[in-house]
Amino acid sequence: MATINGVNGVNGNGHQAHHHHIGEERRKSCWYEEEIEENLRWCFALNSILHTGASQYQDITLLDTKPFGKTLIIDGKLQSAEIDEFIYHESLVHPALLHHPNPKTIFIMGGGEGSTAREILRHETVEKVIMCDIDEEVVDFCKSYLDVNKEAFGDSRLHLVINDARAELVSSKDSFDVIIGDLADPIEGGPCYQLYTKSFYESTVKPRLNVGGIFVTQAGPAGVFSHTQVFSCIYNTLKHVFQYVVPFSAHIPSYADTWGWVMASDAPFTAEVEEIDMRIKQRVKGENSFLDGKTFVSASTLCKAVRQTLAKETQVYTEKTAKFIYGHGAAHRTLNA
Amino acid sequence: MATINGVNGVNGNGHQAHHHHIGEERRKSCWYEEEIEENLRWCFALNSILHTGASQYQDITLLDTKPFGKTLIIDGKLQSAEIDEFIYHESLVHPALLHHPNPKTIFIMGGGEGSTAREILRHETVEKVIMCDIDEEVVDFCKSYLDVNKEAFGDSRLHLVINDARAELVSSKDSFDVIIGDLADPIEGGPCYQLYTKSFYESTVKPRLNVGGIFVTQAGPAGVFSHTQVFSCIYNTLKHVFQYVVPFSAHIPSYADTWGWVMASDAPFTAEVEEIDMRIKQRVKGENSFLDGKTFVSASTLCKAVRQTLAKETQVYTEKTAKFIYGHGAAHRTLNA
Amino acid sequence: MATINGVNGVNGNGHQAHHHHIGEERRKSCWYEEEIEENLRWCFALNSILHTGASQYQDITLLDTKPFGKTLIIDGKLQSAEIDEFIYHESLVHPALLHHPNPKTIFIMGGGEGSTAREILRHETVEKVIMCDIDEEVVDFCKSYLDVNKEAFGDSRLHLVINDARAELVSSKDSFDVIIGDLADPIEGGPCYQLYTKSFYESTVKPRLNVGGIFVTQAGPAGVFSHTQVFSCIYNTLKHVFQYVVPFSAHIPSYADTWGWVMASDAPFTAEVEEIDMRIKQRVKGENSFLDGKTFVSASTLCKAVRQTLAKETQVYTEKTAKFIYGHGAAHRTLNA
Amino acid sequence: MATINGVNGVNGNGHQAHHHHIGEERRKSCWYEEEIEENLRWCFALNSILHTGASQYQDITLLDTKPFGKTLIIDGKLQSAEIDEFIYHESLVHPALLHHPNPKTIFIMGGGEGSTAREILRHETVEKVIMCDIDEEVVDFCKSYLDVNKEAFGDSRLHLVINDARAELVSSKDSFDVIIGDLADPIEGGPCYQLYTKSFYESTVKPRLNVGGIFVTQAGPAGVFSHTQVFSCIYNTLKHVFQYVVPFSAHIPSYADTWGWVMASDAPFTAEVEEIDMRIKQRVKGENSFLDGKTFVSASTLCKAVRQTLAKETQVYTEKTAKFIYGHGAAHRTLNA
Repeated sequence: MATINGVNGVNGNGHQAHHHHIGEERRKSCWYEEEIEENLRWCFALNSILHTGASQYQDITLLDTKPFGKTLIIDGKLQSAEIDEFIYHESLVHPALLHHPNPKTIFIMGGGEGSTAREILRHETVEKVIMCDIDEEVVDFCKSYLDVNKEAFGDSRLHLVINDARAELVSSKDSFDVIIGDLADPIEGGPCYQLYTKSFYESTVKPRLNVGGIFVTQAGPAGVFSHTQVFSCIYNTLKHVFQYVVPFSAHIPSYADTWGWVMASDAPFTAEVEEIDMRIKQRVKGENSFLDGKTFVSASTLCKAVRQTLAKETQVYTEKTAKFIYGHGAAHRTLNA
Repeated sequence: MATINGVNGVNGNGHQAHHHHIGEERRKSCWYEEEIEENLRWCFALNSILHTGASQYQDITLLDTKPFGKTLIIDGKLQSAEIDEFIYHESLVHPALLHHPNPKTIFIMGGGEGSTAREILRHETVEKVIMCDIDEEVVDFCKSYLDVNKEAFGDSRLHLVINDARAELVSSKDSFDVIIGDLADPIEGGPCYQLYTKSFYESTVKPRLNVGGIFVTQAGPAGVFSHTQVFSCIYNTLKHVFQYVVPFSAHIPSYADTWGWVMASDAPFTAEVEEIDMRIKQRVKGENSFLDGKTFVSASTLCKAVRQTLAKETQVYTEKTAKFIYGHGAAHRTLNA
Repeated sequence: MATINGVNGVNGNGHQAHHHHIGEERRKSCWYEEEIEENLRWCFALNSILHTGASQYQDITLLDTKPFGKTLIIDGKLQSAEIDEFIYHESLVHPALLHHPNPKTIFIMGGGEGSTAREILRHETVEKVIMCDIDEEVVDFCKSYLDVNKEAFGDSRLHLVINDARAELVSSKDSFDVIIGDLADPIEGGPCYQLYTKSFYESTVKPRLNVGGIFVTQAGPAGVFSHTQVFSCIYNTLKHVFQYVVPFSAHIPSYADTWGWVMASDAPFTAEVEEIDMRIKQRVKGENSFLDGKTFVSASTLCKAVRQTLAKETQVYTEKTAKFIYGHGAAHRTLNA
Repeated sequence: MATINGVNGVNGNGHQAHHHHIGEERRKSCWYEEEIEENLRWCFALNSILHTGASQYQDITLLDTKPFGKTLIIDGKLQSAEIDEFIYHESLVHPALLHHPNPKTIFIMGGGEGSTAREILRHETVEKVIMCDIDEEVVDFCKSYLDVNKEAFGDSRLHLVINDARAELVSSKDSFDVIIGDLADPIEGGPCYQLYTKSFYESTVKPRLNVGGIFVTQAGPAGVFSHTQVFSCIYNTLKHVFQYVVPFSAHIPSYADTWGWVMASDAPFTAEVEEIDMRIKQRVKGENSFLDGKTFVSASTLCKAVRQTLAKETQVYTEKTAKFIYGHGAAHRTLNA
């Protein structure tokens, strides 16, 4: 090693003067890099690699990134970043629970990170939450490392089940006010595509909803271009099963894309801006950062390009017609190989 | 988080079958990146960021990289990589000690990493090694984290001095059989350029060498193009001070370049291949991986392009004419700013 | 060169079979890389580097990128990408023109790319457009290379002026129905900050608007986090000058962010969804891809986090208080250095 | 597009003052990136993408890179860079021709780039060179774009044959003083592995050599670690076929590695340093940049680590035992897939 040496006092002062700059230089040399699409990369400067591990199903990494804080990576794909996961989880949870008149029992398909449960448990109407994730090690990992969900994991209303969500719903005798799909995107041959099909929605989800019950699912990228990957098809599939279907979307900075969710029910969604804001005040502990009545108006009013695709979409997910997606929330490259 | 779920038994097996591949995929998403030159980058996939810290003088990081193992980074520049530091350190130490008839006392300028001392201490003739590094925190860091040098740091023949190497040599009453320069490259305004000047060699180094003593220094990049940065000038400067001067070089994979060293003495270098190999057997504990008689013949026989530059080089380092280098072994961008 | 050879007929066929894959492999080795923020990189695979050049003021490059098509880069920052520039330009132009009862005369500050003029000229009410850009070479470059704007540049209603926009407005005797700011973001010390100040809006812009006239400006990044850079301050500054001010935003994929615009007038903005859609039908040639009545509702209904910042914003741009922005649309790093 | 505008005269001057810096900034945003190994990347800043094309066998790209000049890429792997291809081609050609007492007829397997022919044709003893490359389009591409080889392609002594090198040698009635292998590395299932086997050397190459004839081949990476990929095995295979075998190597900066060649004959290699230098003077037009007598001593004296592997190597390439290599000079990832 050629160490720096021979510095006299005067230069020594010089060193200290430049010290902050030195640090900046050094810290930018380690990067996390993700291929969002085949020809598109998204790279975060790293502070550290906090933990790495592997479960029976997935590889799991927790990074400390400069632009987005602690970041959970599953099978090489960004799942959730500390500074903006609230956008995803507030959007997934609150519109569905707020449109329901009195949501008491909730079933989460997936959700092992714990953030979906955390947002649900902020609703004072909620009496029981079943979180059903197949991967115990991911759940344990998140329980240990994600401080922000510690309280939720300890809430007595939360019932954690390690099982395949479909098997659990099939065998369950309970029914629910809200069922939430917090799963990887539907990829042909991927681990979750069966949980996005018309038959699954019809035969497994809908029968487990109480009267007036609401189903909501994350629905993949929903940007001006990316919404054609799975968002429009999930929307169209749900339209074949439920009477009322509301697609909505929001830009999530760490995903470098706009993300989509679809909410569905056989009861109409009647809550207006003021009603939503009032219900937040009455039912939700703490304050939302992202979602309120107006935010939901914006999120559920899609731009012309996306609305046109959704209107024309004819594909329905069946066991035989899963579509491919290249992107977030999925271990598809590997699992699909 | 959109967790993977809903995997049935059959797919579960599929997951395990792909598991190795999944890991490979994930692990390649974190990278160390260094700009070797302004327009040239060298990037290593990362296993982990082991430690980061900062001393009074420098920022220091220890990475676990996939291609080169544990890698020491100082001020954003690669210093030393686990799997090939033996090339640098065997080349810096053994030619000088092996050409000396009986090296007992050694002075290292810099060398805080400990690897130079480790190689010296393998010589059974050696009775005393003074390692003089200005940065106590770097030394402590390396002592703690570089297992390969643990034994050397604990050797009773090693005397560690925290001081500026020039000041130490000036005030020292001792003289040495071999003096070794393990310092950052000479950059105009950089921390070490004073330790590469004609006046330093003449007034400070040479007077501290015993009769027949040898001085050797790392001498920066020595590739077909990069040798013009500082290698040829260090060589020429030493030629103005010592009677016999031997430049040599070797390709170090983690540096993405050929590296240079220069050895100088007022006694001729007479050991031939067989003599060198015999001295290794007689004096050196353990086995070298890189250096032996033939390796030194190869290293000290420079290619035509480099020999021509060295023959024509006229510049001599003085306090006023340090040259710029963009590259390894130096915090020059920052310190020179 | 170690050329591939010795391939027999059978393997030759094999080559052809793999040919598509070979191409994919090769084409991904060239990348455009932009630091969106200091610790955040956005990288596009390249097809080719179409043109590079430099004007008196700026460096200008036209790339052919895989994910976003032809992409215009000014001073190392992405300005406009072929496949999604319609989002930026439809948002900048149409809301303002559609809210005006009968827009005939339009002044563009900047806009040298030609896309803003192109969108304006689709309005059949428009009789005269002045595009005032300081950089003739950028205008000529875009005229030559951006086929999509060829027709606009040739439209007899377009009057191109090469001048500083402020000087032009100050000396102009004309007044306008709509004035459009298509300029780099306001950066302290940057080239355009004077064109975002309260005094500029009050003394230069407003006097040049006809009664009922509308001013609209691009307003920098407007994401959940990035809106604090300049968006909230541009909004607040305009609120001190105009009676009615409407901020709106939309996610632009190639920018990896949500972008903002602010529209201002002393006449109220009264057009509802249906009215906007009707005016589009009546006035606009061709079909919008992005903007219609509902899109504008979504874009102008900001999410809670952004609304809160805007409501609390107290800063007003003056000649002395420009704010820093790290991001798109600006050569700030260089110009601000 | 948010163009820069509103610049007054004073700022305008400021722009010009910063202009050089702006350019630097811009030009570094386009990069060529190669995965040297799976976990190791080597990236060059780009000036431009000069040409891209595809032949029946290969994809071919010519880049203008900042650190290495014009660079030829075949199937995503660097083949040859303007500023240092002389190291590869002087090493491939001159040692073999200079050790031969009077080389008149030369056969090149591969070599479509033209640089190998160029170096051969500098030898005034040479009367006839057959360059046999399978890919006519690559040859045409190089003929058109590589100015440095224009003269060689036009030399009347050069006979270009488009054919599989093995088929050509098998059917040829000529024999040669020197046969040169300028082919992709031997990869299991790759296009060239049959041209590195014991049976090929024995049955096809050796019978086509005149008495005292010399065979030389490029032999893949030969660094302290990388020499185990194919270099040691090519060496060992040739040792089973020829009486005298000389491996040698040199660091090539643009390859980020040391490269290897192996020279073989049934006549001993007796030329010493002085003889080589004299023959260069007598026979070779123009001046070598890299290779002379001393350079060859250095190149053919391998370091201890490499010599040890070569001494212990037992594997011989046969039709059934090709080894895998990850690296330069080969389209192996694709072709082997």
